[in-house]
Amino acid sequence: MQIFTPAKSSTTTFEKYESLIKEALEAVHKREHYSPFPEMPSPADYGEGAEAAQKAQFEAQLGAKFEHLKQSSDAWLESDEESPFTGKALKISYPAFSDVESYIAASQKAHEMWKHTDVKTRAGILVETLQQLKSHFFELAFATMHTTGQSYMMSFQASGPHAADRALEAIALGYSELTRFADRVSWEKPAGKFNLKLEKFGMNVGRGLALAIGCSTFPTWNTLPGLYASLITGNAVIVKPHPKAIYPIAIVIGVIQNVLKENGFDPNLVLLACDKSDNQITKKLAEHPAIKIIDFTGSNAFGNYVEGLPGKIVFTEKAGVNSIIIDSIDDLDAMAKNIAFSISLYSGQMCTAPQNIYVPESGIAVKDGHASLEDVEKAIVEQTRGLVEHPKAGHAVAGAIQSKATMERVLKAKDIGGKVLLESKPISNPDFPDAHTQSPVIIELNRDSRNLVKGEMFGPIVFIIPTKDTNESLELASKSARECGAITCGAYTQNEETMQKIALAMADASTAVSFNLTGGIYVNQNASFSDFHVSGGNPAGNASFTNPEFVVKRFVRVQSRIFVK
Amino acid sequence: MQIFTPAKSSTTTFEKYESLIKEALEAVHKREHYSPFPEMPSPADYGEGAEAAQKAQFEAQLGAKFEHLKQSSDAWLESDEESPFTGKALKISYPAFSDVESYIAASQKAHEMWKHTDVKTRAGILVETLQQLKSHFFELAFATMHTTGQSYMMSFQASGPHAADRALEAIALGYSELTRFADRVSWEKPAGKFNLKLEKFGMNVGRGLALAIGCSTFPTWNTLPGLYASLITGNAVIVKPHPKAIYPIAIVIGVIQNVLKENGFDPNLVLLACDKSDNQITKKLAEHPAIKIIDFTGSNAFGNYVEGLPGKIVFTEKAGVNSIIIDSIDDLDAMAKNIAFSISLYSGQMCTAPQNIYVPESGIAVKDGHASLEDVEKAIVEQTRGLVEHPKAGHAVAGAIQSKATMERVLKAKDIGGKVLLESKPISNPDFPDAHTQSPVIIELNRDSRNLVKGEMFGPIVFIIPTKDTNESLELASKSARECGAITCGAYTQNEETMQKIALAMADASTAVSFNLTGGIYVNQNASFSDFHVSGGNPAGNASFTNPEFVVKRFVRVQSRIFVK
Repeated sequence: MQIFTPAKSSTTTFEKYESLIKEALEAVHKREHYSPFPEMPSPADYGEGAEAAQKAQFEAQLGAKFEHLKQSSDAWLESDEESPFTGKALKISYPAFSDVESYIAASQKAHEMWKHTDVKTRAGILVETLQQLKSHFFELAFATMHTTGQSYMMSFQASGPHAADRALEAIALGYSELTRFADRVSWEKPAGKFNLKLEKFGMNVGRGLALAIGCSTFPTWNTLPGLYASLITGNAVIVKPHPKAIYPIAIVIGVIQNVLKENGFDPNLVLLACDKSDNQITKKLAEHPAIKIIDFTGSNAFGNYVEGLPGKIVFTEKAGVNSIIIDSIDDLDAMAKNIAFSISLYSGQMCTAPQNIYVPESGIAVKDGHASLEDVEKAIVEQTRGLVEHPKAGHAVAGAIQSKATMERVLKAKDIGGKVLLESKPISNPDFPDAHTQSPVIIELNRDSRNLVKGEMFGPIVFIIPTKDTNESLELASKSARECGAITCGAYTQNEETMQKIALAMADASTAVSFNLTGGIYVNQNASFSDFHVSGGNPAGNASFTNPEFVVKRFVRVQSRIFVK
Repeated sequence: MQIFTPAKSSTTTFEKYESLIKEALEAVHKREHYSPFPEMPSPADYGEGAEAAQKAQFEAQLGAKFEHLKQSSDAWLESDEESPFTGKALKISYPAFSDVESYIAASQKAHEMWKHTDVKTRAGILVETLQQLKSHFFELAFATMHTTGQSYMMSFQASGPHAADRALEAIALGYSELTRFADRVSWEKPAGKFNLKLEKFGMNVGRGLALAIGCSTFPTWNTLPGLYASLITGNAVIVKPHPKAIYPIAIVIGVIQNVLKENGFDPNLVLLACDKSDNQITKKLAEHPAIKIIDFTGSNAFGNYVEGLPGKIVFTEKAGVNSIIIDSIDDLDAMAKNIAFSISLYSGQMCTAPQNIYVPESGIAVKDGHASLEDVEKAIVEQTRGLVEHPKAGHAVAGAIQSKATMERVLKAKDIGGKVLLESKPISNPDFPDAHTQSPVIIELNRDSRNLVKGEMFGPIVFIIPTKDTNESLELASKSARECGAITCGAYTQNEETMQKIALAMADASTAVSFNLTGGIYVNQNASFSDFHVSGGNPAGNASFTNPEFVVKRFVRVQSRIFVK
């Protein structure tokens, strides 16, 4: 007897992607390097002329209606987006509903069919959306650049291949969890002269409607994991992007809706619900009783509000204070160069960027003997100055400042009370003379001025904090991670015992440590399939890309049974 | 380089139990019948003379200090426990601290070593505790009987083998999750002419201190899954039993503390924290900032309070209203007999016991043609009467009533406003003439009186609710599951389409359905390794014994990395 007949799509695409899904799942478990979507914008991988064509598409989109969505709507909403590189409004209009209830109703309707669709069909369709997204990676890059202020290269990588990697990771782990237990069981229990028999049928039930709340700096990279995790587990998703960064996620949603429609599903299964800065609908959506799951990336204040909503399954990435602990190092300049890059990359607007650098007052051991605190400070300052003043590398690494608030924060930082070691200056960008740029400010906070700074100072603002010794550095970094949250921690030490001590103490504060980075890898970078992004164990966020918890909380398992005479 | 040196116990017992853990894990995934702890109290399995010896131990324990704990304490607390079978106080004293902070401090100290102990050592030690617990199953049975009112057989099975099964299930799934990802990875990423290299080290970090809050009816069965899930994932646990049911879990904790000590660990890793009914310490413990995880079984009011505590990872099993939907049946009497047993078993004091039975007003199809509503009612009433009035089976199935509140509820139920089909009466028990017993009351609620009952009426109280048809029955049962919660649902139908409809609609309310139970299996029974207990998707509870979510939320994964030149 068949109780649960899986709903079938018209075009089943699971077989097409079965080997990719299994390969991705193996990578998830092995944590080795794996990268199915090429990260360089090369014509060999993405097609001759694709970049130029999509650049033209981007330019044509400015000032126009975004026509690539297949969702229901009753109005056009002109967004508040403006380019940090040109300072100009994008003037793009997106389809919208004029009330929250219409989003909920459309989402619920689309959910009916999807929730009873078998996981293989869902997995196939979702991987197909990523495959189709590949042919939009350049447009995505321009859209991301001109909303977030990321440089072109980072925009391409973060919003395109790296976001798709994270989405695939969520699909693969979701597929694994949904198929983990036998779903048809002939249960037989000896009971003396005869056996008791039951036929059991397992079924996974999505929690219902999900809300994905986007941020202004990584509009696809931070949204795709939750979006795809909710979809693979049988939920419908309403995406509420940041009002200043809609275009990139709109491209993704357009592709998803298209694939859904091609496969006979209601495209409203994933809805773009955008709004204006002065009239946001986020709370109305989040508090709606039909919304069961919320994914959020953004500020602590709003993140704590979302986490406190009763009866919701909530996944957050909030703010953290990331530390670097300098104990000893082989090559001082190589270390300083690595740190300079880390603090300059996207002008410190990555959630993984370091903020507080702890250095013993007495200096550190280096290859040639000893470097004083001043030597360490000077090395970091010089390497940073060299990078941001480099005519080509400077703006290519730093990009632009996304928001007015960040710009004001960095300009005011010099007055905070510490000793300014490096002042913040505009970074020249020949391609975009009006770009909103500002190089990192580096400030020393001595014992008396340490308390002037509490928590995160988002943007290119860096503090060097002299300490009694590495033990105190570790104590401060670990306390800060526990109390203010942390997503990353860098450490430099040539002593194995110290390394173990730092790793353990920071692990107890749920923070991973990157040791002795001196080459082309930076503390800011977390690799899909290998590095878990955010641990979920300190105030920087309660979720992790992508661990099992990130998918299993999105559905429940119901196993019914039939008595067999 | 080795960053994380696992702490080693003096006696590593993993190898001893490796095959059992792997067998259990395979069973968890296959969901077939599996039962490593024999469920019958037979001398062949548990030793000749064991029952008599442990009965004597139980009798000697009454009125005495419980000396089998190895935990720190500063006082003896005489409990409020009393036997529902004799009506007498047990007058057992347990070691206690006079303030909550002392429990926290002792727990934190014990946690230090355990949290850095490798998972294999933890798994071995935990399975060893279950093996040693086997030689206490008879004492556990007497202790359970004389605190909960369960019959002797149920006390043996529920508190002994079935609880141990559930504990093993949690250990096995925890072991699987903790060893799921590679914990040592040589990561290499091609970067043009050379490869970028990192050595990565994974580590699982328990959330910290856990609190397990027990209930009065299943003091070990409901507590062991969370207790063992917290332990295997690296947390310390404080167990706060119900003030009326301490003895059974004290036996378990005594065994665990003994094994911990034997293996060189601090026995305070699992602490009994008991209290008196009029001076409970539950809220003080639950709200303590050091408590990170809470497992709770009990009332909706307290469960909702616990779920609402900010910053805690909470697992609850609360109250639900379980339904039976009668649509059609082959053998009316066989069905009625099965239902009679289900509602009489432990006098309806199981969280899985049915309460509301929906029957179409026009009657149902049966093998011989048609049975009217009255025929169905009569069959259930007669079978129930026959069972509870049976001189041997009656008290053996029904046991005794655990609390005064339940006793008052069942005595008042006849005045609720419905039509009483079967009155509740004391059930005679020749072994215990003073036992607090009361047979099920069965009440018909017609269309006008339906609203007289809202939510759970805990105890042997059953309502037969006539409906327009099975569609309305399903609508009411599904609505009730969504709004009031449900842990089980029974259904009788000979129509495959109706079966599918019921299964799907109840699955959407996160409730598993048992179809056409007429033999020796009852809707109340959930089998370890095969049936998930509580779905976690409706108000009856937010957790499930034992799905992956039940273990993965108890720890975070931190993966550090070292740059390789």
